[in-house]
Amino acid sequence: MIDSYQRRVSTTVEVGGVPVGGESPIVVQSMTNTPTADVDASIEQITLLVEAGSEIVRITVDTREAAAAVPLITTRLREIGVAVPLVGDFHYNGHQLLTEYPDCARELAKYRINPGNVGGGDYREEHFRAIIDQAIAFDRPVRIGANWGSLDRSLLTRLMDENAAAGGSLDAAAVTREALVRSVLDSAELAEEAGLSPDRIIVSCKTSDVQELIAVNRELAARCRYPVHLGLTEAGLMEKGIVGSTAGMAVLLQEGIGDTIRVSITPDASGDRGQEVRVARQILQSMGLRSFEPQITSCPGCGRTDSTFFQELAVEVTTHVRAKITEWRDLYPGVEEMTIAVMGCVVNGPGESRHADIGISLPGSGEAPRVPVYVDGELHQTLTGDRISDEFIALLEEYAERRFGRGGDRA
Amino acid sequence: MIDSYQRRVSTTVEVGGVPVGGESPIVVQSMTNTPTADVDASIEQITLLVEAGSEIVRITVDTREAAAAVPLITTRLREIGVAVPLVGDFHYNGHQLLTEYPDCARELAKYRINPGNVGGGDYREEHFRAIIDQAIAFDRPVRIGANWGSLDRSLLTRLMDENAAAGGSLDAAAVTREALVRSVLDSAELAEEAGLSPDRIIVSCKTSDVQELIAVNRELAARCRYPVHLGLTEAGLMEKGIVGSTAGMAVLLQEGIGDTIRVSITPDASGDRGQEVRVARQILQSMGLRSFEPQITSCPGCGRTDSTFFQELAVEVTTHVRAKITEWRDLYPGVEEMTIAVMGCVVNGPGESRHADIGISLPGSGEAPRVPVYVDGELHQTLTGDRISDEFIALLEEYAERRFGRGGDRA
Repeated sequence: MIDSYQRRVSTTVEVGGVPVGGESPIVVQSMTNTPTADVDASIEQITLLVEAGSEIVRITVDTREAAAAVPLITTRLREIGVAVPLVGDFHYNGHQLLTEYPDCARELAKYRINPGNVGGGDYREEHFRAIIDQAIAFDRPVRIGANWGSLDRSLLTRLMDENAAAGGSLDAAAVTREALVRSVLDSAELAEEAGLSPDRIIVSCKTSDVQELIAVNRELAARCRYPVHLGLTEAGLMEKGIVGSTAGMAVLLQEGIGDTIRVSITPDASGDRGQEVRVARQILQSMGLRSFEPQITSCPGCGRTDSTFFQELAVEVTTHVRAKITEWRDLYPGVEEMTIAVMGCVVNGPGESRHADIGISLPGSGEAPRVPVYVDGELHQTLTGDRISDEFIALLEEYAERRFGRGGDRA
Repeated sequence: MIDSYQRRVSTTVEVGGVPVGGESPIVVQSMTNTPTADVDASIEQITLLVEAGSEIVRITVDTREAAAAVPLITTRLREIGVAVPLVGDFHYNGHQLLTEYPDCARELAKYRINPGNVGGGDYREEHFRAIIDQAIAFDRPVRIGANWGSLDRSLLTRLMDENAAAGGSLDAAAVTREALVRSVLDSAELAEEAGLSPDRIIVSCKTSDVQELIAVNRELAARCRYPVHLGLTEAGLMEKGIVGSTAGMAVLLQEGIGDTIRVSITPDASGDRGQEVRVARQILQSMGLRSFEPQITSCPGCGRTDSTFFQELAVEVTTHVRAKITEWRDLYPGVEEMTIAVMGCVVNGPGESRHADIGISLPGSGEAPRVPVYVDGELHQTLTGDRISDEFIALLEEYAERRFGRGGDRA
């Protein structure tokens, strides 16, 4: 599909039945913000994230209560038919919780280990090893994920000293990046030495700065074959969070780096947790890497677009598609690749509509009130009157059925 | 600032006092959606776009009424102290309007010509030439901007035929990209032959598909030295529009391509036109290419973050910064580079706060109710009690003044 796209070569790691890496589709992840010990709230949010399209869900496992809740959550999810691998996020006490709560260790599909938060000094290796031992015992993959907000300070200090002793050729940012990469790769080596198979390891290095994210992930990707989990950490609110996450990940994905992604935006006052999933999916679909739902192209409007009618129609079509997509996916396999254009005037309207599978070009200011609809690049029919929205939506339904339905053009 | 960033070499083109290209900052543009003939509405929206940060504003000039309104608009903008270059967007009848309305031609800072919409057959060159003659007469730059929704059909057909005759080595998408690039560069050559100086020409090729946008702009950028205007055309609503625009432009900007940008998102029901400007600025700032306002890093929250207090604080800090930024910019030069962190627990809170100029790390679930504030990477003070928001905002104000104020650390 994309001429110049070449995915980085990586091992495939199975996470509770979901393949990550290799030539598998890039996986969308998310994380709950409910206390894991609150079983009902966690189940409700996991269900919401899965419905939004999250293919793996991470939950924090920070206390004994949280660890004890994990098997209750997974059991209930199975009962209500929500099939999603759950990942446990561990810091500081993962070695204790995974050892004391074997049911938790068994029920989690993956353990996320932060190599900066497994304990200091003599305990570091011992604690890390205890987690790896449980991963081996339960045959579970791990993600070794460093974050510049919780970087192993002793490693950073050592690399700073080494750099200074060698004449200080690297700046502080470069040493920090090297510390992130080394923290992850040294830990992965330790895990392999302890007996964990290399196809049970996913890695990540996160920063909240876009350019640092790009630089550190290029380095990480070049130095191993483990699948890479991508995400801009602590991306922030709304426009900042969405733009920053997209900018950093788009550059890396375009270079073939990234096997699974998460968008770490701060929820706004509405608390809508599904947004991080929608944004993650949109990044992949906008870049042509995956298809999740029909895409609606619509113009920004200008002084030529006579009214807000095309904006309303764009919203109406989007709402209709979102409402129907679950049903459509069952009835019309492949419908998620459909493209729709809703355009506001003659300048780019007919042309853009021809690029879409089905497009409508509304008349701009001063244009005659005829509304051409294009299908598969050809003028299909011309609408007039005041039932244009309903008629266009009916044409959309017809198109979806004819092209993607059983017995349709594709079948 | 970014080690690997190398900007493409381009000529600098002055647009009403705003330099575009060369080593000038990448310029943020936007476009009105009011009828240009409605002088009051247009002035109101231009003012809104400028206040949001648009450095150049485009207006459609589609009718005699619109052309006649242009000098009324620019005169009033000068009277009320809104200094922004206005660009006229011309299709089909630009040659007539610019000739019949010399005051319009004089008052516009740039003419946008769509080479697919200057007329067909024998008239094409004559109409194009008439616009270029006015650009020369008034010493105005032009943007020669092709769009795949209004591509010169005769050129496309000719290239398709040539490709077929040569064995059809290119697919239809590649021929379309070549037609976009040729449409622009052939027209630019014609403009130069007519006597327009090369430093009066900006170029663009827009598509609504991210991968096509990337591919066509790489080609365009490699084949000329004119500044390139970037934008994903007809990007669509909200998350789709923001993500698609960011993804396409981030990849190109990271490669050094792009001297001015516009985000063409469809406004939602609120009709907030300023959003396209905020998103454009955020793309540039997230990528470290320009600084417009202090950036707030905040975490997405998880099962460890006890409450929504950190989300509320993130919103409060964002609101405070937005409310104060105009005043701050006057008082504290450079304050737009300030970084702030608002974090929800101990895992990445202290570390992320140390990466910011000033950061606060709220206690997560089970943590003691002490709230460390970090300044310039060091623990500055620990807040307790229930006035934490007010106290942190006061510390922000102090920091901005001390570091960026007259007589402050920077002075």
